[in-house]
Amino acid sequence: MKIAVDAMGGDNAPQAVVEGAVQAAKEYGHKIFLVGLEQAISEELAKYNLSDIRLEIVPASQVVEMHESPVAVLRQKKDSSLVKAISLLKEGSAQALVTAGNTGAAMACATIHLRAIQGVERPAIATVLPTLHGYSLLLDAGANVDCKPFHLLQFAIMGHIYTRDILGIEDPKVGLLNIGEEEGKGNELTKQAFELLKGGPFNFVGNVDGKRLYSGFADVIVCDGFVGNVALKTSEAVAEAMVDFFRREVESNWRNKLGFLFLRPALRKLKRRMDYAEYGGAPLLGVNGAIVIAHGASGAKAIKNAVRVAGEVVKYDVNRHIEDNIVRRGKLARFLNRN
Amino acid sequence: MKIAVDAMGGDNAPQAVVEGAVQAAKEYGHKIFLVGLEQAISEELAKYNLSDIRLEIVPASQVVEMHESPVAVLRQKKDSSLVKAISLLKEGSAQALVTAGNTGAAMACATIHLRAIQGVERPAIATVLPTLHGYSLLLDAGANVDCKPFHLLQFAIMGHIYTRDILGIEDPKVGLLNIGEEEGKGNELTKQAFELLKGGPFNFVGNVDGKRLYSGFADVIVCDGFVGNVALKTSEAVAEAMVDFFRREVESNWRNKLGFLFLRPALRKLKRRMDYAEYGGAPLLGVNGAIVIAHGASGAKAIKNAVRVAGEVVKYDVNRHIEDNIVRRGKLARFLNRN
Repeated sequence: MKIAVDAMGGDNAPQAVVEGAVQAAKEYGHKIFLVGLEQAISEELAKYNLSDIRLEIVPASQVVEMHESPVAVLRQKKDSSLVKAISLLKEGSAQALVTAGNTGAAMACATIHLRAIQGVERPAIATVLPTLHGYSLLLDAGANVDCKPFHLLQFAIMGHIYTRDILGIEDPKVGLLNIGEEEGKGNELTKQAFELLKGGPFNFVGNVDGKRLYSGFADVIVCDGFVGNVALKTSEAVAEAMVDFFRREVESNWRNKLGFLFLRPALRKLKRRMDYAEYGGAPLLGVNGAIVIAHGASGAKAIKNAVRVAGEVVKYDVNRHIEDNIVRRGKLARFLNRN
Repeated sequence: MKIAVDAMGGDNAPQAVVEGAVQAAKEYGHKIFLVGLEQAISEELAKYNLSDIRLEIVPASQVVEMHESPVAVLRQKKDSSLVKAISLLKEGSAQALVTAGNTGAAMACATIHLRAIQGVERPAIATVLPTLHGYSLLLDAGANVDCKPFHLLQFAIMGHIYTRDILGIEDPKVGLLNIGEEEGKGNELTKQAFELLKGGPFNFVGNVDGKRLYSGFADVIVCDGFVGNVALKTSEAVAEAMVDFFRREVESNWRNKLGFLFLRPALRKLKRRMDYAEYGGAPLLGVNGAIVIAHGASGAKAIKNAVRVAGEVVKYDVNRHIEDNIVRRGKLARFLNRN
């Protein structure tokens, strides 16, 4: 498989991205196109033994910064690593793309250059959340900051298809992120979305409030991208604050230090469990092309895992499943057409 | 001071509420009106030694359930503990009210029966968040699920006044909860609110994304009530999930159990730090009357602390400060009139 990696995207680019790409090329055997500033990528590559792996630099002269507006990127960054990587996808040289860069820009460039799958109004970022017993899929995690109820319905259907056909969950439970559990709770968006979702041809289990986000109550949780982004970043912030506070306490006396020595393996396991890097990137569902968005703070491991996820998106032909179900045939398509 | 407590409100009512009220009466010396089903409250009170404390039952025949819509409560629950407690405030028999019950109903009944402070369009729930070095105030925590930019501006001003005049923070830093740190990020609401806030006569420090929610970067963080509620409940969920996971690990072998014995005091301190019960309730700012909203899952300690907060709201005359600054005089009032 051939996968393009935006070597300039993310807080730790190009170092961590190149390192992760090298690891992925070794571990999964994919051919990786590293797209970006040729000189910078070459310097990073010089650190590794590249025998027996397939890596190619695709030069791009511009870099998209994290704070740039999507509109500015579309207009002024036509030779950026992001846009260049997307064109590799478009011309068929690569089958998937991984980027840890500016999410808004990635979403905008992908939608303009590759277009959304016919029938999909808004592509969405689908992020995996760890729960006590497994995983849930949250979408949208930040691609669409202002949504209409119909968009949440489409997210639900794309999430349903992804968890059923790719993650292999039979009859996935679909929930709506809301501020209470009972029907009738919420803002205008979620109240109207509830009405649409409850008639949907999938297993709608109702509202999921923040308290149940990590409970595994639903396999798919839909929300607008603003709320999804706040929920995810807040989660990270709490986990980090707890770890920081705990670390300070541990350093405060010998008794705590001793306890820490015993508990270190358990704490490592906890950290691993909460660590987004383990889950790799989040697929951008609904766009014509396999694009995986990695966390902006991705280290090498996160990039490597995002390449793995990109490979799975291609292997299981996620887009064909979405297109078939949303547009061409079946009860999901019929239901969407009625709404 | 005389404080009314909605004895029937919350998941653990009336047991935990009565217990907390008894503790508060003892510790703070306030007179407490316990409002609700007479028989049920009497049975709970029989468990305690009530000498030297001032407690009085105020009978109310109805109970507001957690899932009831505010409109239904206003129409059908006129003799509920909530409405009865609010009327004690209105007639001046009590100076403050604490409820752990249905937040939407509390907000609606308070606004209808007591009215908002003149000039305040939307009262807001102001919740204290622990940070590494102190506390931040988040509002709105759930009273207003659909907001206009001007409402966020008023929340900012009420938060500014509360933290400055009551919490004693000089020139408090005011931030906007958003999905990125740079100006220009966000949905329609936050983009427009940013424009209003940056011209405000207070120390606006810009966007606060979820990652910085617990960083202490801002003393006051404003958002609409939907987003605030999701952020708070998600935070609780993450903290609980981490503790659950850790507990399981600890029980899995002797090495972890031993480490846990040493670390128990540190873990208790962490739990205390993350525990909303320590901070008491959240004042409903902007309504004519001192109302403190306690967490729906409040135990006795949370209720006791909510009564303490209610006492402070009265003692520092929060409402006069808001009214003076928003309506009567000064640069905040002039600024609001221009917008």
